[in-house]
Amino acid sequence: MYKISPSILSADFSDLKSEINKIVEGGADYIHLDVMDGLFVPNITFGAPVIKNLRKITNKPFDVHLMIERPERYIDDFVDAGADIITVHQESSVHLHRTIQQIKNHGIKAGVSLNPATPIETIEYVLENLDMVLIMTVNPGFGGQSLIKEMKEKVMKLRSIIEEKNLDIDIQVDGGVKLDNIEEIKSWGANIFVVGSGIFKAKDIKSETQKYKEILF
Amino acid sequence: MYKISPSILSADFSDLKSEINKIVEGGADYIHLDVMDGLFVPNITFGAPVIKNLRKITNKPFDVHLMIERPERYIDDFVDAGADIITVHQESSVHLHRTIQQIKNHGIKAGVSLNPATPIETIEYVLENLDMVLIMTVNPGFGGQSLIKEMKEKVMKLRSIIEEKNLDIDIQVDGGVKLDNIEEIKSWGANIFVVGSGIFKAKDIKSETQKYKEILF
Amino acid sequence: MYKISPSILSADFSDLKSEINKIVEGGADYIHLDVMDGLFVPNITFGAPVIKNLRKITNKPFDVHLMIERPERYIDDFVDAGADIITVHQESSVHLHRTIQQIKNHGIKAGVSLNPATPIETIEYVLENLDMVLIMTVNPGFGGQSLIKEMKEKVMKLRSIIEEKNLDIDIQVDGGVKLDNIEEIKSWGANIFVVGSGIFKAKDIKSETQKYKEILF
Amino acid sequence: MYKISPSILSADFSDLKSEINKIVEGGADYIHLDVMDGLFVPNITFGAPVIKNLRKITNKPFDVHLMIERPERYIDDFVDAGADIITVHQESSVHLHRTIQQIKNHGIKAGVSLNPATPIETIEYVLENLDMVLIMTVNPGFGGQSLIKEMKEKVMKLRSIIEEKNLDIDIQVDGGVKLDNIEEIKSWGANIFVVGSGIFKAKDIKSETQKYKEILF
Amino acid sequence: MYKISPSILSADFSDLKSEINKIVEGGADYIHLDVMDGLFVPNITFGAPVIKNLRKITNKPFDVHLMIERPERYIDDFVDAGADIITVHQESSVHLHRTIQQIKNHGIKAGVSLNPATPIETIEYVLENLDMVLIMTVNPGFGGQSLIKEMKEKVMKLRSIIEEKNLDIDIQVDGGVKLDNIEEIKSWGANIFVVGSGIFKAKDIKSETQKYKEILF
Amino acid sequence: MYKISPSILSADFSDLKSEINKIVEGGADYIHLDVMDGLFVPNITFGAPVIKNLRKITNKPFDVHLMIERPERYIDDFVDAGADIITVHQESSVHLHRTIQQIKNHGIKAGVSLNPATPIETIEYVLENLDMVLIMTVNPGFGGQSLIKEMKEKVMKLRSIIEEKNLDIDIQVDGGVKLDNIEEIKSWGANIFVVGSGIFKAKDIKSETQKYKEILF
Repeated sequence: MYKISPSILSADFSDLKSEINKIVEGGADYIHLDVMDGLFVPNITFGAPVIKNLRKITNKPFDVHLMIERPERYIDDFVDAGADIITVHQESSVHLHRTIQQIKNHGIKAGVSLNPATPIETIEYVLENLDMVLIMTVNPGFGGQSLIKEMKEKVMKLRSIIEEKNLDIDIQVDGGVKLDNIEEIKSWGANIFVVGSGIFKAKDIKSETQKYKEILF
Repeated sequence: MYKISPSILSADFSDLKSEINKIVEGGADYIHLDVMDGLFVPNITFGAPVIKNLRKITNKPFDVHLMIERPERYIDDFVDAGADIITVHQESSVHLHRTIQQIKNHGIKAGVSLNPATPIETIEYVLENLDMVLIMTVNPGFGGQSLIKEMKEKVMKLRSIIEEKNLDIDIQVDGGVKLDNIEEIKSWGANIFVVGSGIFKAKDIKSETQKYKEILF
Repeated sequence: MYKISPSILSADFSDLKSEINKIVEGGADYIHLDVMDGLFVPNITFGAPVIKNLRKITNKPFDVHLMIERPERYIDDFVDAGADIITVHQESSVHLHRTIQQIKNHGIKAGVSLNPATPIETIEYVLENLDMVLIMTVNPGFGGQSLIKEMKEKVMKLRSIIEEKNLDIDIQVDGGVKLDNIEEIKSWGANIFVVGSGIFKAKDIKSETQKYKEILF
Repeated sequence: MYKISPSILSADFSDLKSEINKIVEGGADYIHLDVMDGLFVPNITFGAPVIKNLRKITNKPFDVHLMIERPERYIDDFVDAGADIITVHQESSVHLHRTIQQIKNHGIKAGVSLNPATPIETIEYVLENLDMVLIMTVNPGFGGQSLIKEMKEKVMKLRSIIEEKNLDIDIQVDGGVKLDNIEEIKSWGANIFVVGSGIFKAKDIKSETQKYKEILF
Repeated sequence: MYKISPSILSADFSDLKSEINKIVEGGADYIHLDVMDGLFVPNITFGAPVIKNLRKITNKPFDVHLMIERPERYIDDFVDAGADIITVHQESSVHLHRTIQQIKNHGIKAGVSLNPATPIETIEYVLENLDMVLIMTVNPGFGGQSLIKEMKEKVMKLRSIIEEKNLDIDIQVDGGVKLDNIEEIKSWGANIFVVGSGIFKAKDIKSETQKYKEILF
Repeated sequence: MYKISPSILSADFSDLKSEINKIVEGGADYIHLDVMDGLFVPNITFGAPVIKNLRKITNKPFDVHLMIERPERYIDDFVDAGADIITVHQESSVHLHRTIQQIKNHGIKAGVSLNPATPIETIEYVLENLDMVLIMTVNPGFGGQSLIKEMKEKVMKLRSIIEEKNLDIDIQVDGGVKLDNIEEIKSWGANIFVVGSGIFKAKDIKSETQKYKEILF
């Protein structure tokens, strides 16, 4: 139930095969892929052609987080590239229900992500269609930020809604997750943890991944 | 004077270090980096964070081709990431003169790229500020296209203008360049050749790069 | 109080006079006109010049549903074309209050439509200014979809708010309304029913319209 | 070689079957279909769903003029709806060459239209791929304008380029074409004439169409 | 605690020094500066270069209300121009939390403004970061409107949330504030009052400002 | 025939009445008003409400330079505010001919401005409708730039076209015009000179304006 999804945005892009192998050996559950288009967020990272190349390295689920405008334009490309989960932002499309259906029609998992300022109520009518909600605990598009403390309340409220409705939905958190706060965030109700520099900037990526895994169990 | 600039968009992204080392050993002059934002062209490839990671592999010039909207927003990021040449599209900004100055103020080379339908006259008043003009010989954003034959006339016309004005400007061509047509394209007046799958899909990337080099001399 | 508003988007556009006469004879209360601009939704249907031509056929109220970006630009044109009710999307403008006033200043009725994912709370502060709320029960812009079951809860909640505040506001539903579910939808609290292919693809349009009318009373 | 293409935008939309039959009987060569999205031009007219309905009336070529932003998004829809010729605006896309290929790949004819202020030089590198060039002789999106006299020079220049290059390309003119100026416009080198209110606002549409035909021969 | 913030948009722009001096002498607490870009609202007023010129007239706080798209682009310019408070619209950016941090990182006060139709819930997760919430009591971008009566409920609800959470946040109202309703608006819970023509169109600007001040105490 | 048009963007905005009176007394022929919207250029200056307030100071012609996107949206507002000449950018609208007509239909003068990179050929078909062409000799939106030397060729070419066609069109230059280069620019064929800081940052604005006037005669 508890999962680690290391974000390769913090990895060494000149040697992704080794980097990804290390986190897989360390027990990473998902490979987190941060797609940015320079429009929804002020940074361009990578897209479907890059992801397609990584598919042969591992069969771990590819957890693709689309920080792009009107993601409906590119859902099919990311499925073709090998995505197992596609998460789109509530703020990036006025046709959120349709986009979720588009993802699910491919037989893969669908997630919705909320920027720090975005209320949970905005996904009230799509919640039951989702496999995962991604609560951004920092502002997307930038590195080196600390976890925004008001997000504790948001994660807890969402977990409580999910339990009340008796749904089976993962809560993922992304931003500022470190070894020294992951247990606390887990206690709020999150169960999938995106970790970036915390893992990839460590001396031993594999054993650092293991530490994140161990702390959760 | 004649140069090969292999585009890593056709390389194996899971192992860029090896891929880039092979083309460098084969004699590649530049590393061609195709940045697409999913807006100017219908594909998202990669951006500054990926390029930054590649900078440590080689000191060959990074030849960054920005297929993005309003590139002035991101020039500084690509310079920070290690670009030696930045080429922007004439069609992507109404402030082309300013964007070229912005690039040159960083002390690096500036290029302008023209889509297949775009006339040379559109760069009449910035030509003397440029280090390179990139003539797209296919439509940007898609793979697997053949060279558009009308581009012969465009390359020849541009070379003739450059000679007439006694300027020192490279003409780069991108799209459909293969071993069997590179000599002809050279005869039109182009001197920098972007090669994609022609090199990276070959069995021996290094020796294939050498073939392109040899054919030019 | 219960009304049928057949959408001519499913009619035969080569003979709208006959088609509209048939639904009028069958007892249609409104003529539903689905305006799409290819931007707010991925389809272009028809606009004011077409509607203007239909005005002479019937004096039944024209119920114009604007699925267009920033509808404030075209309100006046649709009023000139003969609209009796103009419904705009909550998601299509950040100046919703102003747009509603703009419609009402022409002395016609104003509606707001909500996409499937959009919560009712987004119209909290304009509700008392409205004559109608349109709950989309499918995603706008596409044909052949089934009614989204989560919309039951939305319609019921809205009816309950309207009654609690003692307001006189119609609830229109659009998408997947058929003879075999219209009574159930009525029981949720909707009172105006958009019907498309259910009527226009029937063998006898007039008598099919009558069936929808009869089932409501 | 000389053709009349009556624009149904001036027809009675409540009875398009009759209206179209009249122009067909009068000798109309093409049916001109003015698609506007309210963004490229300030008016929304009609799109693919309407055109599809008209296809059964006649087998005369459908001459579809797309006055919409980024027409590449909808080319396939208009082909499905029955277009025989699709004309896109030079000003509406930065990927004009690609859009023309997209049209031609469907096996239909491709045209490019130029707004009054747009020079012919902008289509220099796609001219040989075109079946038709549409010279707007009024500003698109509005009715009731007179022919802009500077367009004489543009039509003549284009005809002269086409002859010099020995190409087989139609020149269509749209805007302000009337019985009393059509012979003059023909003398400039245009050979396909869009006529709007001149035909559809006449008492006898069929015989008025015939007059336009006769005057050309 | 109660403050008057006269909007210079109603002042005589040919003589701002005198106009601003009069309101300062009359006891104005803030100078309200309405920045509009013709995109977020349909009017262009003035920007940073104008504000910079006014900074030398007075040391009263500059209360800058940005009615512009994606205000994050220009926050730094307005801080440089001398802003003491910057208020951005909830509807103008999907990265509201980040924009507020950007303002506060300059050491000045941050506000968020809500259009008449926008619910308070949209700022739930940023409320504790704010110094001020601006409730628009008319639609932004236009003059001469009356206060929208539904805003009473919004102001009261916001004041009640602020008190419940024991926060120290100002509530500013803008639009239709006059001598004859300011006491009532104060009773709803607002404490900073933007006044426009009510002050600047008066015969004696200084004494009119005083009247607004006196009525509050 | 030779005219000075001082740009008040360099004036002291706290005291425009005095500033404008000084240049009028010094012999300024036009008052140049630089309108920027933060979108076409990266700066917001001022718009119609400010200009309207200045109209009462002087009856000198208001020479309004619109550096805004799609200026057709605001032409009428600037005419109402008192503009005598409105200049729009070639790059800001795809309906340039229509926008020029819109200006001229108000009975005032129409100009078109060209960014440094924009060729003269882009205005070939509207030239005869124009009263003025504004050649930007720096990039719009920024202060403190030097005149771009390639613009000499552009001004000379335009003057030569105007003389050849025997037209009566003013050539205005804007950017980097100083006392020490104005005679040279005049010799290229320009006859209206926008001067900014050269006048308003001088110790004696009136006498500095006179110097610019004297040097032209």
